[in-house]
Amino acid sequence: MDILLLAVELIGTFAFAVSGALLAARKGFDVVGSVLLASMAGLGGGVIRDVLIGYGPPLALENPVYLAPVLVAVVLVMTGLLHETRLRRTLLVFDAVGLSLFCLTGTVIAWEAGLTELACVLLGISTAVGGGAMRDVVANETPQIFNPRGVYAVPAMLGAALTVTALSLELSLVWAGPVIALLVFALRMISLRRGWRVPLAGRRFSAAEGNSGPSAD
Amino acid sequence: MDILLLAVELIGTFAFAVSGALLAARKGFDVVGSVLLASMAGLGGGVIRDVLIGYGPPLALENPVYLAPVLVAVVLVMTGLLHETRLRRTLLVFDAVGLSLFCLTGTVIAWEAGLTELACVLLGISTAVGGGAMRDVVANETPQIFNPRGVYAVPAMLGAALTVTALSLELSLVWAGPVIALLVFALRMISLRRGWRVPLAGRRFSAAEGNSGPSAD
Amino acid sequence: MDILLLAVELIGTFAFAVSGALLAARKGFDVVGSVLLASMAGLGGGVIRDVLIGYGPPLALENPVYLAPVLVAVVLVMTGLLHETRLRRTLLVFDAVGLSLFCLTGTVIAWEAGLTELACVLLGISTAVGGGAMRDVVANETPQIFNPRGVYAVPAMLGAALTVTALSLELSLVWAGPVIALLVFALRMISLRRGWRVPLAGRRFSAAEGNSGPSAD
Repeated sequence: MDILLLAVELIGTFAFAVSGALLAARKGFDVVGSVLLASMAGLGGGVIRDVLIGYGPPLALENPVYLAPVLVAVVLVMTGLLHETRLRRTLLVFDAVGLSLFCLTGTVIAWEAGLTELACVLLGISTAVGGGAMRDVVANETPQIFNPRGVYAVPAMLGAALTVTALSLELSLVWAGPVIALLVFALRMISLRRGWRVPLAGRRFSAAEGNSGPSAD
Repeated sequence: MDILLLAVELIGTFAFAVSGALLAARKGFDVVGSVLLASMAGLGGGVIRDVLIGYGPPLALENPVYLAPVLVAVVLVMTGLLHETRLRRTLLVFDAVGLSLFCLTGTVIAWEAGLTELACVLLGISTAVGGGAMRDVVANETPQIFNPRGVYAVPAMLGAALTVTALSLELSLVWAGPVIALLVFALRMISLRRGWRVPLAGRRFSAAEGNSGPSAD
Repeated sequence: MDILLLAVELIGTFAFAVSGALLAARKGFDVVGSVLLASMAGLGGGVIRDVLIGYGPPLALENPVYLAPVLVAVVLVMTGLLHETRLRRTLLVFDAVGLSLFCLTGTVIAWEAGLTELACVLLGISTAVGGGAMRDVVANETPQIFNPRGVYAVPAMLGAALTVTALSLELSLVWAGPVIALLVFALRMISLRRGWRVPLAGRRFSAAEGNSGPSAD
């Protein structure tokens, strides 16, 4: 694999691993639980991608270098160097970095495996949101992807679609990649600051519409 | 793949996608969350099946037509054309349609992949109940398969076993398929109406049996 | 597959299946839900392992003998022969047996598939803790691996690492295997009895450090 692609993967892994370690700290897990949750957050998206592509063992299991960013993240949180109270904004920045990098690398790796364009886009999205979803599901939390404040999956969808477009046009990803990642990152951060929302999935039931109170939630 | 099999898959996908979009609406997710949850409900069972068979990329990722029923379901729920309060019975009908079709298609696809008869039955069941389980787990709900009111997995087990029997006897599925699907559908709907139950997994603790209150829950 | 390896797999499957059936009983699921949850607990670790290795259909789906320990476990719990109140210690013993056997078999099967040493260790750990994690996640519980009382993943890590060491040194597993399994089992049981803990994932927020109460949990 390209050394540049690997470097981008590792930065994204670190960003998501930090989010997993911070969640483990918030839930009172011990440091071993932190390693497990940070691994799922940091490596889960790539593992889901590789399993869906139909590779043999996922890259993250075969290459020891993937464990380094996970362990660094756990140590930084355990020692208090990364702390949610003070660095809440920093956490969101890291998470957005992971999102913007993984929708790129996920799409590229699916493309290199020879998948159709649609499959590349879907795998790019799955890579970007999969680790965070696994982190939240395993920790028994409602996943962040369903939080209607800010937009989360939309930037990943846009990034994956732009990456496939760039690959189809045979643009150099050395130039197109940073532009796409920056766009995804900016979209996510601006949506958080401005509190952007997309429409709800449906009307929630109101008293006027039906009196079946219990089924309303 | 057979065009008939594909058509049946798409109807089942639509039925489960509706259930995902309705759950997203009930939980206050936005329309992007609705797309994600409807995708998991509608496509999750087939993705689990294809991963377990050991295919390369799952059919649902490669063929764009699978996304159509998901998007239609999300739009119908978002616009209020499908609404849980009024159409609660309709939802259960759709869900039962999905269950009865997916235990059939899951078993057939596993059979065509050359798996053993047991594996075909187990994959048929996994396809039928997997998407709904993924939907509920990701939305942080106790899965419907564990709801002791009505029988849910039993019709799927029966349908998968009958499908393998029909395939072994080289019966034409054009005739046997609808009969099996109708049987599964009827069994599910009648069990709901009659409130059929199967025995519990074990005795729940009562005060007479032990005084260790906290461990009883 | 070696008959001895299969026997060890089946004992481990039984042990974890009992834990799944007991959880189903505690949550008021019916006997079909018990079969599903016991299957996930008993077979889930091996299925995760086989999917990550990139095999075709997992061993547990192809070989009917894997269902026997699951069904026996469900019957023992349903009939009350295994009962959590009286046999709480017994449950923990069974669970520890499963843990100690699965970190061994998972590592060996990954080794026989020709994976790198690191991947073998990671797959041994995943096999050992995966079924229990799937059981708890699907039943909407915070997984046992995150319970900071006693150590759970550490013995599995140690067992997997020792197994890879033994395989590298070409030691006979007929002798090394029981020693490793006993060590893992003893470490788990002693940690429970002594209440061993590893350090927490991070400091939980106190009033002195920040006044953002809601974010503290």
